[in-house]
Amino acid sequence: MDREATHRTDAPDPTEAPSPDHTGTPAAVSAPARVAADGEPISYDELALTTRNHGLPLEALRYDVTPPGLHYVLVHYDIPDAHADDWTLSVGGLVKSPLTLHMAALRSLPAVTHRVTMECAGNGRARLTPRPVSQPWLVEAVGTAEWTGVPLQALLDAAGVRPGAVEAVFTGADHGIERGVEQDYRRSLPLAPLPPDVLVAYAMNGQPLPPQHGYPLRLVVPGWYGMAHVKWLRDITLVDAPFTGFQQAVAYRFRQDADDPGEPVTRILPRALLVPPGFPDFMSRTRVLRPGPVRVEGRAWSGFAPVARVEVTTDDGASWHEAELAPPDGHSTAWRRWEYAWMPTPGDHVLSARATDEHGRTQPLTQPWNRGGFGNNLVQRVPVHCPAG
Amino acid sequence: MDREATHRTDAPDPTEAPSPDHTGTPAAVSAPARVAADGEPISYDELALTTRNHGLPLEALRYDVTPPGLHYVLVHYDIPDAHADDWTLSVGGLVKSPLTLHMAALRSLPAVTHRVTMECAGNGRARLTPRPVSQPWLVEAVGTAEWTGVPLQALLDAAGVRPGAVEAVFTGADHGIERGVEQDYRRSLPLAPLPPDVLVAYAMNGQPLPPQHGYPLRLVVPGWYGMAHVKWLRDITLVDAPFTGFQQAVAYRFRQDADDPGEPVTRILPRALLVPPGFPDFMSRTRVLRPGPVRVEGRAWSGFAPVARVEVTTDDGASWHEAELAPPDGHSTAWRRWEYAWMPTPGDHVLSARATDEHGRTQPLTQPWNRGGFGNNLVQRVPVHCPAG
Repeated sequence: MDREATHRTDAPDPTEAPSPDHTGTPAAVSAPARVAADGEPISYDELALTTRNHGLPLEALRYDVTPPGLHYVLVHYDIPDAHADDWTLSVGGLVKSPLTLHMAALRSLPAVTHRVTMECAGNGRARLTPRPVSQPWLVEAVGTAEWTGVPLQALLDAAGVRPGAVEAVFTGADHGIERGVEQDYRRSLPLAPLPPDVLVAYAMNGQPLPPQHGYPLRLVVPGWYGMAHVKWLRDITLVDAPFTGFQQAVAYRFRQDADDPGEPVTRILPRALLVPPGFPDFMSRTRVLRPGPVRVEGRAWSGFAPVARVEVTTDDGASWHEAELAPPDGHSTAWRRWEYAWMPTPGDHVLSARATDEHGRTQPLTQPWNRGGFGNNLVQRVPVHCPAG
Repeated sequence: MDREATHRTDAPDPTEAPSPDHTGTPAAVSAPARVAADGEPISYDELALTTRNHGLPLEALRYDVTPPGLHYVLVHYDIPDAHADDWTLSVGGLVKSPLTLHMAALRSLPAVTHRVTMECAGNGRARLTPRPVSQPWLVEAVGTAEWTGVPLQALLDAAGVRPGAVEAVFTGADHGIERGVEQDYRRSLPLAPLPPDVLVAYAMNGQPLPPQHGYPLRLVVPGWYGMAHVKWLRDITLVDAPFTGFQQAVAYRFRQDADDPGEPVTRILPRALLVPPGFPDFMSRTRVLRPGPVRVEGRAWSGFAPVARVEVTTDDGASWHEAELAPPDGHSTAWRRWEYAWMPTPGDHVLSARATDEHGRTQPLTQPWNRGGFGNNLVQRVPVHCPAG
């Protein structure tokens, strides 16, 4: 089934260069990546992705931890028909003692829980001009959960990392074709250093993982965009050269054109979102807000450093004001709540919020375009209509 | 807040005729219902609905009971910021003893559980030509859950129905504007007879309702499309004339044009869906299936009567074959599993399934168009590519 790897279960070939035609798949089934033409509308292919994947309804930014079913979901292929009873995780490649772990063995190891804000790397893609053709997120592909599992480092220590290992390659059970390349979903992480607090997680918000979030096992890489958090995790292989599989070397790179090798997509860029105030129109989602004092609230996050500052505008960027950050709650890899007191006047307003992290990274006011539509953290715009009286 | 009702909490005015301009809302905020022009693409307003609402990923048809987060969700306005601790349900209008029930009181009453397949009345809308402009479902707005709560009849018996009461009006806490009408979401059911097995439900699959499914309380009307299952239920009022609120008399009617009074949308028309076999291309969702025997499986349902028959075609309707229905499982208001053994040959195929219920209702092979895009149970088409060898 797995055409990308040389050996399916435990030896992804780190030197394999994906070929756009090696499955013999007709282009009508699996076409190359592309950017929409000027003015090209949302296609039915893009629509079909949005009816199965979903974002966070923005009013759900009110919850510290996102309730099940409201956290964003992006499934590349199909949700596998997985069963915890017969699930195994293999740990192999450049290790001293290859492991094959059943769920019971994983659950018997010391567990940790991290609260993590996760965001799709393609969040904001559908707002780009021109629009990269893929899952057309507007701004809502985010969520925060409490993930429980075994530290990846503990599994690597148990297996024993052999000299020369430079990356760990993680393979999920989800299988499909993407841009002509048949594959199991697969990503790698560097070993020196390994990103902090990486988990092999079997619980989300204290419950077994829901199917769409990787049941029974997934990787969680705090601070990184969603593509790194390999779901339905079945294999970890240590390799002696950087992994060049599709999701690492072809997809998920910041490229300006098809020939640009680009830079890899890794950590989450800063973003603030606000709970749209008032109430919506069903069809346009435009907000209506009665005049009177209102506490505008939202969340802000960055995968690079804690959020240091959130600014708010209620006049579409003509003036910016400091929002009040909630006190630190000890969850350094999760979003931070903020508030801003506003007294709207009758008329039409546009609200935005802008996050800056402790490293000084902030959100752009013009679109940060790239060919994959990754990391578009352009500030959100929320039009609000305040009726007179 | 509630401009549709004369008295907000317990006395929806059954004679009120919604006026398209009584909120003074600009048309740019809340426009009238409309049908897309010939060839008009999916708009960003439609896209914004699909990024917050979502359907059932079709591979999840494999589960008898849909896991949390995979059941379809359609939220008209915002998910209310509801808390079970201070939630009350009022029962008033033409009753002998008006009731105000806290959650603890509801939970102390004898409870029942029903397995119910629920479907959005607008499922299939985006496949219609011309396309009614609203939530653009393709075919996936369905799910099955175990709902636990108090029979509505028990609450009506406790309050005592007074002579002259003809309908019960159900009001949710979700507030918004729709087609120019500001409103709390509100629907009615007839009392003589009341549809069978109607529940006031506080649990879904054994857990408190998720926020997006009506936490802490919703109506469940087995066999009816989703618009009847009022979420965030806060009031039941018995009235002496048919309710004419927006969601009853304006929306959710089978109309051929804007002046047609139309027929009300009520029970779910028959439909079969299949789990797309093989594996998908990421972008087109087209299926690739290796040659060899395959069990095509799916679900079928009807809100009118049990499913009697499912037929399958693998040649885009040129020939139809009987599928094998799973034995009855006692859940008469839930979908029924079916299977069909298929031996695909190399090439391109189109699969469909067609349900017929015990009343002889079946699915059309040409689109059943209406202005709201309701009840489009045209058979699903699943293109499958079988590579040679």
